Amino acid sequence: MKQWEKGKGWGWVWGPEDEVGSLNEMTEASKLAALQLAKTGKSYDLGVTYDRDSFKWPGHSPGEIMTFRTPEGVKRQGGFPTDESGTAWHSCALFINDNVATQIDGLGHGVEGKDNHWYNGFTEADWGGDWGIRKCDATTIPSIVARGVLIDVAGYKGVSALPPHYGITVNDLKGTLKKQGTKLKPGDVVLIRTGAVQYWEKLEDREKLTAHDTAGLVLAGAKWLVEEQGAMLIGADTSGLEHGVRPEELAAVVEKHNSFMPVHNYLLIRQGVHIGELHYLEDLAAEKAYEFTYICSTNKIKGTTAGFTLRPIALR
Amino acid sequence: MKQWEKGKGWGWVWGPEDEVGSLNEMTEASKLAALQLAKTGKSYDLGVTYDRDSFKWPGHSPGEIMTFRTPEGVKRQGGFPTDESGTAWHSCALFINDNVATQIDGLGHGVEGKDNHWYNGFTEADWGGDWGIRKCDATTIPSIVARGVLIDVAGYKGVSALPPHYGITVNDLKGTLKKQGTKLKPGDVVLIRTGAVQYWEKLEDREKLTAHDTAGLVLAGAKWLVEEQGAMLIGADTSGLEHGVRPEELAAVVEKHNSFMPVHNYLLIRQGVHIGELHYLEDLAAEKAYEFTYICSTNKIKGTTAGFTLRPIALR
Amino acid sequence: MKQWEKGKGWGWVWGPEDEVGSLNEMTEASKLAALQLAKTGKSYDLGVTYDRDSFKWPGHSPGEIMTFRTPEGVKRQGGFPTDESGTAWHSCALFINDNVATQIDGLGHGVEGKDNHWYNGFTEADWGGDWGIRKCDATTIPSIVARGVLIDVAGYKGVSALPPHYGITVNDLKGTLKKQGTKLKPGDVVLIRTGAVQYWEKLEDREKLTAHDTAGLVLAGAKWLVEEQGAMLIGADTSGLEHGVRPEELAAVVEKHNSFMPVHNYLLIRQGVHIGELHYLEDLAAEKAYEFTYICSTNKIKGTTAGFTLRPIALR
Amino acid sequence: MKQWEKGKGWGWVWGPEDEVGSLNEMTEASKLAALQLAKTGKSYDLGVTYDRDSFKWPGHSPGEIMTFRTPEGVKRQGGFPTDESGTAWHSCALFINDNVATQIDGLGHGVEGKDNHWYNGFTEADWGGDWGIRKCDATTIPSIVARGVLIDVAGYKGVSALPPHYGITVNDLKGTLKKQGTKLKPGDVVLIRTGAVQYWEKLEDREKLTAHDTAGLVLAGAKWLVEEQGAMLIGADTSGLEHGVRPEELAAVVEKHNSFMPVHNYLLIRQGVHIGELHYLEDLAAEKAYEFTYICSTNKIKGTTAGFTLRPIALR
Repeated sequence: MKQWEKGKGWGWVWGPEDEVGSLNEMTEASKLAALQLAKTGKSYDLGVTYDRDSFKWPGHSPGEIMTFRTPEGVKRQGGFPTDESGTAWHSCALFINDNVATQIDGLGHGVEGKDNHWYNGFTEADWGGDWGIRKCDATTIPSIVARGVLIDVAGYKGVSALPPHYGITVNDLKGTLKKQGTKLKPGDVVLIRTGAVQYWEKLEDREKLTAHDTAGLVLAGAKWLVEEQGAMLIGADTSGLEHGVRPEELAAVVEKHNSFMPVHNYLLIRQGVHIGELHYLEDLAAEKAYEFTYICSTNKIKGTTAGFTLRPIALR
Repeated sequence: MKQWEKGKGWGWVWGPEDEVGSLNEMTEASKLAALQLAKTGKSYDLGVTYDRDSFKWPGHSPGEIMTFRTPEGVKRQGGFPTDESGTAWHSCALFINDNVATQIDGLGHGVEGKDNHWYNGFTEADWGGDWGIRKCDATTIPSIVARGVLIDVAGYKGVSALPPHYGITVNDLKGTLKKQGTKLKPGDVVLIRTGAVQYWEKLEDREKLTAHDTAGLVLAGAKWLVEEQGAMLIGADTSGLEHGVRPEELAAVVEKHNSFMPVHNYLLIRQGVHIGELHYLEDLAAEKAYEFTYICSTNKIKGTTAGFTLRPIALR
Repeated sequence: MKQWEKGKGWGWVWGPEDEVGSLNEMTEASKLAALQLAKTGKSYDLGVTYDRDSFKWPGHSPGEIMTFRTPEGVKRQGGFPTDESGTAWHSCALFINDNVATQIDGLGHGVEGKDNHWYNGFTEADWGGDWGIRKCDATTIPSIVARGVLIDVAGYKGVSALPPHYGITVNDLKGTLKKQGTKLKPGDVVLIRTGAVQYWEKLEDREKLTAHDTAGLVLAGAKWLVEEQGAMLIGADTSGLEHGVRPEELAAVVEKHNSFMPVHNYLLIRQGVHIGELHYLEDLAAEKAYEFTYICSTNKIKGTTAGFTLRPIALR
Repeated sequence: MKQWEKGKGWGWVWGPEDEVGSLNEMTEASKLAALQLAKTGKSYDLGVTYDRDSFKWPGHSPGEIMTFRTPEGVKRQGGFPTDESGTAWHSCALFINDNVATQIDGLGHGVEGKDNHWYNGFTEADWGGDWGIRKCDATTIPSIVARGVLIDVAGYKGVSALPPHYGITVNDLKGTLKKQGTKLKPGDVVLIRTGAVQYWEKLEDREKLTAHDTAGLVLAGAKWLVEEQGAMLIGADTSGLEHGVRPEELAAVVEKHNSFMPVHNYLLIRQGVHIGELHYLEDLAAEKAYEFTYICSTNKIKGTTAGFTLRPIALR
């Protein structure tokens, strides 16, 4: 590892212009090693399907996929060379939020401080903008090829999905890894399974999804993964990775951690560690596929604060 | 190969419910073999950056990336638990077309016939919709892991970029492959370089981009690649892959090929072969990287007619 | 009246090219007479305020009003002549449906028949399009200056708002008019008050709004107003004007009237009578302002199926 | 007049909470008097038609009117009660900017100062927001019923349209009024004709529109209208009302007036006088209709910085 220090993790160690954070650890050698984990070529689709009804945090903008041009419309409206074959096309226009479905949060997604700074001290006054952020947008997230490790906490607990508002502790992580026989290595992409995402697809499961989606990692767990284990990216099968407390407990969390989303502040802003969200981990868990090649490229859209509607691949 | 026949290619050979086409040829073994082409772990980003000013076909809807929530707005408007740390966030809302920047066209993008059918005979009357297409949308495009081959026609011709309206012939393909010392294999992802995409980034190059983007593959070239060589996906560094003729020649093309986009009709509709567009091939060409692992996952958005703003990876 | 016939109303009587319907009855003389109803100059705002949380039929697309350019963004991003005064601007981008807030439904909003025809026999095959309808869009709705009459059915019934699913009958209309001492005249804009719109503004009233919004006019009432009284436009303070039956009664309505929205079919398609929706009638009712000058201009946007987010004026 | 002072105009005279500005001058009596100017009931549509190709300032977001639901889509996708009559509907989704087509600029559109304040001292820090402005948005613009006066400067000059970059002076205004035999009165809506809007509709006139749209009012003219004549709203048939100087002169204007849009700063921010834009004045001019009842209601959308795609009415 280039900059990771046990007991400390990363932080703003990559120079004042850096927008990449811990993903700077990737090297040709690390990518080659990750590729060589694949022994059979079997691949797993870690993306969930997005549509207008998809679950999302209510603070985000809604979405529509609208048929923009239709064969019938093209022909009725005219303006294109007609031919015997009746050639025409479909295209869609989308109104969509950059924080939906399977995501990798960029390092400019969260801010803190009176100066509204994000990773590496970039401030709103300097780098905010009307057309997205101008530092650490999703175009700066390199394509990720790394060793992936599944920590199936739901499996460890013997439940289909962790209970709502369950906070995943360091002991949960240690216990799961031990049971799985998996060892973490610095530079890993760590994916934590709560089981919540099994309720993604069907509208009739929406209440369950909303409830179970609140299970997640506590701050101490995130710190242990980064500072003791060198996790380069931490993801989960929920919309926010971190522990969603009961409404009546929120004030206490804010009091204690000085943030309503302490894991986000810690990972994105202070450590420069990207967060993966809503990764579909059911197939990996079913096959006890705890170690794999993880490959993910975000959409390359200037200004966006996250990669969204992604389809990461796990390969074994 | 499971269904490919030399001299014929594919066609509607995968059963009446199939939405995947030639990508059905991928197997665990083929993916493993493709991964093993990578010898150093060096990766190449084949995606171009998209923003509001990006070049696109004028028939598509325009795009805006809009800062939806800002730290200042979040704090001014209130409604979230305030804390000493001043935690807040950025997110963006996007209005965007599903045919922009680096793309993989889905098998429902183009139609032909009075019945407006696409690949495998799916018709508008049966499978059209207001929220995108209901067969062969981008969610049906499997993640692609395959041998990639660059055919650097511009390099073969000794030009920085092929001239506007240049039609790439079978002989150009053969000549380039011979010069490169590259052999195609059935199941390859074939990427053809015109050089046009070097003008993507800078607004002052827009006229050049618009002009050179019209170079592309002629129908006979597409047929040769599919029927004789078994190309499983054909891409290029232009917005449409195929030969863009001069306006005054368009009527003759329509007359001859019975379509204003005969290569699209042939590949997408009749052969079930996906098309890659606006792949950034400059780095591969500069390093004479003619053979590589090609990995690409499309966004997983119901109804969309293409994967867009993608960032495919080449690995060596 | 030019074409209205007692016992028959209008229909497709204005020639095969007509897109205006009963509003063709307006003349300079009728407009002057309407203006002269105003005796004091007191005006009433009949529009409700629209925002991202506004009540709407769930079948319509959602809405966002997004700050597109901000003074801070303009200055941070640069590109405009800076000056000592610090001049900059705000603008917004909107994603919005054309059937929200105070509306006048255009004559192409509803269709019926296997041929999907609307008013005057315009069919989807001929006049549909990808960018809105190409006959009877909102640009064809002339600015309306006419005698307006309030029929305060809730007031007549002595309730704050008519009960959910209440169907307003001919007798209700007659009884209310009699109690009010109001006489209808051919060419009137008739506005029917249920009281539901009093629950528009506050989010905590949303359940009440949703419930009371289902009160509305039955088909016989619409027929009586058009065929016997010559109502040129019929509006209400609900989102759909017409009687919203209980879910368990819907099948019977469809069976009986051959439509799930028989009043819409009758007025828009068969009679060419525009429909007003979500008109704020509380102030008029409070002042027993039963007769007034009604003035309304729709937004002039090509293709739209209704005027929306309108602010009609009543003047006395 | 309540607050207007000759030689001074208005300014921030309506109390610290005021969001309405000079339109506060409207009274029941003034509205009644304005209505009584109409002698025949003839009406003029002062709105231009908006579509995806409409001319707009390139700094605004683009627009699309998209057919959201179609009869064919509704029937193909299912989910609604089917009936013999084949009832279905059209609706549109729009992506649109709040500064397009016929507009009334709100008092929060422009800002100045390091504190980015607008009319009445509302600042960005206090009243900015992610969902539009929170003071002086378009919902605060009252429906306007007032005496309208056309100042046909192009007619006075004997040209079809004023030359590009022509600056309309006080003498031009005085000369035109004298020739017309029109006298201004405090409280008037003053509409200035350059003739540019005659090029609005046809795409082939776009270059002419772009050129002639730069003619407009100089700052001294705006001051004379407000301070000496009491103009309550000033509009024109161009996209910005004010004099658009040649690019090479812009620096000098900024130097002299301390703003790149001094008329906007003066009217909106300092005087609280709304601006009308892209009013279609050709019919009024053709009939020498110099005095009329002006009626306009803006769309009632929270946060928006202007009324847009409006259709004001002139009545005589």
